[in-house]
Amino acid sequence: MYKQRGEKLWFIPDGYIPEISSGGLTSHESICVLNTSSEEALLRVTIFFEDRDPMEDLMVVVGARRTKHIRTSSLHKEGTPIPVGVPYAIEIASDIPIIVQYSRLDSTQAENALMSVMAFPIK
Amino acid sequence: MYKQRGEKLWFIPDGYIPEISSGGLTSHESICVLNTSSEEALLRVTIFFEDRDPMEDLMVVVGARRTKHIRTSSLHKEGTPIPVGVPYAIEIASDIPIIVQYSRLDSTQAENALMSVMAFPIK
Amino acid sequence: MYKQRGEKLWFIPDGYIPEISSGGLTSHESICVLNTSSEEALLRVTIFFEDRDPMEDLMVVVGARRTKHIRTSSLHKEGTPIPVGVPYAIEIASDIPIIVQYSRLDSTQAENALMSVMAFPIK
Amino acid sequence: MYKQRGEKLWFIPDGYIPEISSGGLTSHESICVLNTSSEEALLRVTIFFEDRDPMEDLMVVVGARRTKHIRTSSLHKEGTPIPVGVPYAIEIASDIPIIVQYSRLDSTQAENALMSVMAFPIK
Repeated sequence: MYKQRGEKLWFIPDGYIPEISSGGLTSHESICVLNTSSEEALLRVTIFFEDRDPMEDLMVVVGARRTKHIRTSSLHKEGTPIPVGVPYAIEIASDIPIIVQYSRLDSTQAENALMSVMAFPIK
Repeated sequence: MYKQRGEKLWFIPDGYIPEISSGGLTSHESICVLNTSSEEALLRVTIFFEDRDPMEDLMVVVGARRTKHIRTSSLHKEGTPIPVGVPYAIEIASDIPIIVQYSRLDSTQAENALMSVMAFPIK
Repeated sequence: MYKQRGEKLWFIPDGYIPEISSGGLTSHESICVLNTSSEEALLRVTIFFEDRDPMEDLMVVVGARRTKHIRTSSLHKEGTPIPVGVPYAIEIASDIPIIVQYSRLDSTQAENALMSVMAFPIK
Repeated sequence: MYKQRGEKLWFIPDGYIPEISSGGLTSHESICVLNTSSEEALLRVTIFFEDRDPMEDLMVVVGARRTKHIRTSSLHKEGTPIPVGVPYAIEIASDIPIIVQYSRLDSTQAENALMSVMAFPIK
């Protein structure tokens, strides 16, 4: 049995899916999750907006002893994806402890730009 | 009733509004706030400088169950904005717990550069 | 005797070695370790993947009162390096407290992009 | 009397002063310090290397209710600056609590790249 590591609740206030890509890379964001344990982790993602009610219960599974780098553009709620070009924020609630990092590649202009943060954990 | 999450006091030592933009994007900073609770959050922002007294009591409201990505160039105190091209630091005090991330897009040169950090919380 | 500082267990969910470099710089990641103490630190690195079992027991030594900026491309297990172009995650377990930061330089396109995070510590 | 905020001891494992600048901006790193209190803060900086003993006791003062964005290239010990193009790590010890963020602008190639992290605090 491998140990569970991290926390069950994580937040990322600065979410944004760029509308435009140029050059050889596609603009994208990734929610990077690590599950060190011997059990699958079930994640429940909530998306908060500036001007409308949250999208709730976007579900993701991360396997035992696996990482998953989740493209936010792949998340959807009954077929509806997260809108592009709109500021939003992310809550990730997991049934077991995990570790979460958020990274964004922006290739709106010809060259890419990168940013990354550890998500903010709540104990 | 949704739970309050995070802390009431956050700091960002590296604030800077670039003077120049080029290419298709405008240089800017964002203070990205998430308010997960069922109540509005009232933020009181203080701006610290290297060579003069702080600007105090810049007020911002973040709605219940909403995020707000605040452009620092939109903040002002009785009509006076934060000066551009000057190093500064940011204190955000909220009446209820929130979560704060800071990001900067610098397009001083032709291509953009990105950086982001979680603000530093005080319990 | 100098004090040990930091934690013994650190995680970085977003690992990725870019496949392509262009311009004057080589794309690379660094695991930057600081050992403030008077004793050598022995690090045991585990690499987690999305679709296969972890690579375990990649060993690194960091001298007393020294930093080491470890290129992930230099890590290997019985001659097998970390694969390029594949999302992965990193666990660093040390026999004494250390401090760990992770940085990536991506020069996939003509100009470089940088990102950096403090690794996530477990107490 | 304004409150002291933060911690007295901070670490940044990934220090590096780029050797080359191009385009309109100079490559540089900044240690960004915020002193929220009514008293001056006296900082004692230690620089750790990969292959030689640390440089100790580089002193910096940060005024009361002031921020200071310290260029690492401005730090020196009896006239000797931190060497460029060499990996190093930073310890900042303050006589009163402060908050520390580290940022790097790299303009080695024609366009700039940015990275930033909160320094790692020890309680």
